[in-house]
Amino acid sequence: MSEKFTPVSTVGEFGLIDRLMARVKGDDEPSELVVCGSGDDAAVYRATEGRLQVITTDALIEGVHFDRRFTPMSYLGIKVIAASVSDIAAMNARPRVATIALGIPRNVSLEMLESLYDGIALACKTYGVQLVGGDTTSSRALSMSVTIIGEAAAEDLVFRRGANVGDLLCVTGDLGASYAGLQILAEQRKALEELGEEYEPDLEPHRYVIDRHLKPEARLDFVDILEELRVRPSAMIDISDGLASELNHICTQSGVGATVQVSNLPFDPVTRAVADQFMQDVDMYAFFGGEDYELLFAAHPDDAQKVAHAGHCVIIGRVEEKSVGVRALSADGQIIPLDGSGGGGFDHFGGDGAPDP
Amino acid sequence: MSEKFTPVSTVGEFGLIDRLMARVKGDDEPSELVVCGSGDDAAVYRATEGRLQVITTDALIEGVHFDRRFTPMSYLGIKVIAASVSDIAAMNARPRVATIALGIPRNVSLEMLESLYDGIALACKTYGVQLVGGDTTSSRALSMSVTIIGEAAAEDLVFRRGANVGDLLCVTGDLGASYAGLQILAEQRKALEELGEEYEPDLEPHRYVIDRHLKPEARLDFVDILEELRVRPSAMIDISDGLASELNHICTQSGVGATVQVSNLPFDPVTRAVADQFMQDVDMYAFFGGEDYELLFAAHPDDAQKVAHAGHCVIIGRVEEKSVGVRALSADGQIIPLDGSGGGGFDHFGGDGAPDP
Repeated sequence: MSEKFTPVSTVGEFGLIDRLMARVKGDDEPSELVVCGSGDDAAVYRATEGRLQVITTDALIEGVHFDRRFTPMSYLGIKVIAASVSDIAAMNARPRVATIALGIPRNVSLEMLESLYDGIALACKTYGVQLVGGDTTSSRALSMSVTIIGEAAAEDLVFRRGANVGDLLCVTGDLGASYAGLQILAEQRKALEELGEEYEPDLEPHRYVIDRHLKPEARLDFVDILEELRVRPSAMIDISDGLASELNHICTQSGVGATVQVSNLPFDPVTRAVADQFMQDVDMYAFFGGEDYELLFAAHPDDAQKVAHAGHCVIIGRVEEKSVGVRALSADGQIIPLDGSGGGGFDHFGGDGAPDP
Repeated sequence: MSEKFTPVSTVGEFGLIDRLMARVKGDDEPSELVVCGSGDDAAVYRATEGRLQVITTDALIEGVHFDRRFTPMSYLGIKVIAASVSDIAAMNARPRVATIALGIPRNVSLEMLESLYDGIALACKTYGVQLVGGDTTSSRALSMSVTIIGEAAAEDLVFRRGANVGDLLCVTGDLGASYAGLQILAEQRKALEELGEEYEPDLEPHRYVIDRHLKPEARLDFVDILEELRVRPSAMIDISDGLASELNHICTQSGVGATVQVSNLPFDPVTRAVADQFMQDVDMYAFFGGEDYELLFAAHPDDAQKVAHAGHCVIIGRVEEKSVGVRALSADGQIIPLDGSGGGGFDHFGGDGAPDP
């Protein structure tokens, strides 16, 4: 990925932190928000009076969440920030400060880490987050653990637990693309292993789904959209583990059931083409693929239609009584249980980030 | 460590989080501080109006920071919280909420994680921290990344950069014990490897230094002491990498030099005995051993003497002009440079947590 390989050991731990923080230059400089950035025992920032603090932590670990051979370091930086910003957005809050703990193996160079931080800096700028500090340590696999703190007015916060029977279920963007991208990357990895280094993959036709997997975008823009439209969903969650898992979270915590119209699920044409290529059901990509980082929310029908009409979401189903369970209705009228009551069957998809389910 | 071995996979990711959060029961229940605990996309808490937020992140990784065979899981939980609380205390702030990202290898059982969380719960209770959430993922080595957010009034905060020429340098507690404990554990590990599982180590005579290494205490109590005595140090840092490293941080950031009287360094008799046993210089344990988690601070002579007189610190030296450098003065009048100007010589000690210096 980089021609030059400077061992991290040549600059030492504190030199490394200086070098990396220089990539996010100014982020930890004293400001209205940041009273004291990195370089002390802890960073100091100023919370906004009258706002609640929203905190989330996410880890990305090499070999579990990503394959470094197929992931440009700058993309990794983008992804690790986006994944946490997505959690903040799902609370209808806005991110403010971030810290990162890096575990660095010997085969990662200073240049690679600088590229990682370029991605982090880009994502931080995109989402208006300030990186105020962190920790670096050696480790066997590259690991990144990000904590982001955001803020929201108490009345704006949206939890998973607020969905009401009769609400409509909506998703932003399109689904399953990240899983489609993962499929393509896995195929390319296999080809590379079989054909050796001379194999040159042509990733361009699948660029959209690959990018959705490698450098997802958090839907923080949707928090602005909700504010503009003066809509507050009754429940919201980000789609990191797959639509089925997220639906179950909302339904369990809200004490409700749900029916999803499979024919309403939004897909990009490239995602459909990948599913066709692998002779797989594209709907399953949406339900169990994960890492789309779109938002699933429940809202009063008037609100849902307002957002859908403005082109910012699609309505995929309805919140029902708890007794209905959590299910999908296919175009030909088949009922597909999504709450495990059908005895599973899709378990082989698994959820990314789960400890070996 | 535990007779029973329930694979983590049997409870799944969300079951695991429920099981673990039950060990810190109540911590993430809604309260004046915690508006929404774990179980949503992010946790929500209320910052205290008029206070600044102080944030720190620390990672502990198996094989880098600890050897699981010699570290009871509950101690690890205590240590990972204490290390971050120590950073907050070094800012003269008090911790409030914490998140943890866990990387879990297959050979770690549910019981072991529950024991880890018992340690985390105990430490959280000790320091008045509420664990509000986190992330779990599979990984090759056990890793824990903790973020703690604390608070302080702006006028109470103490940075590294405030030391003034003429201030006295002080440390709390005693030094070098953690390194002495590590030496004993390394010796026992070697014996165990040579003599096999039948070898039963007698750790009791060295319990103090072993405990100082395995389950250190953060000196949050010293923040209370400073408040009671109405003393605000001019600069403060926690001793995690060794006195020499911390002294250099304070001096570099304050633009000053320092002279430490070696004969004033405080040691426990057990620490001295271990150094004698290994025919090592106990002073080097203090300067380069690390992980003591005591506090090093600079203060106006009147303030320093007030704290020392009350028995809460010892005065070990004086802040000098920058031109003096950072140095130690031995009992026989020898000058030992601590800022690397002497060409090193102690580099083999290394700093724990540094990426392979």
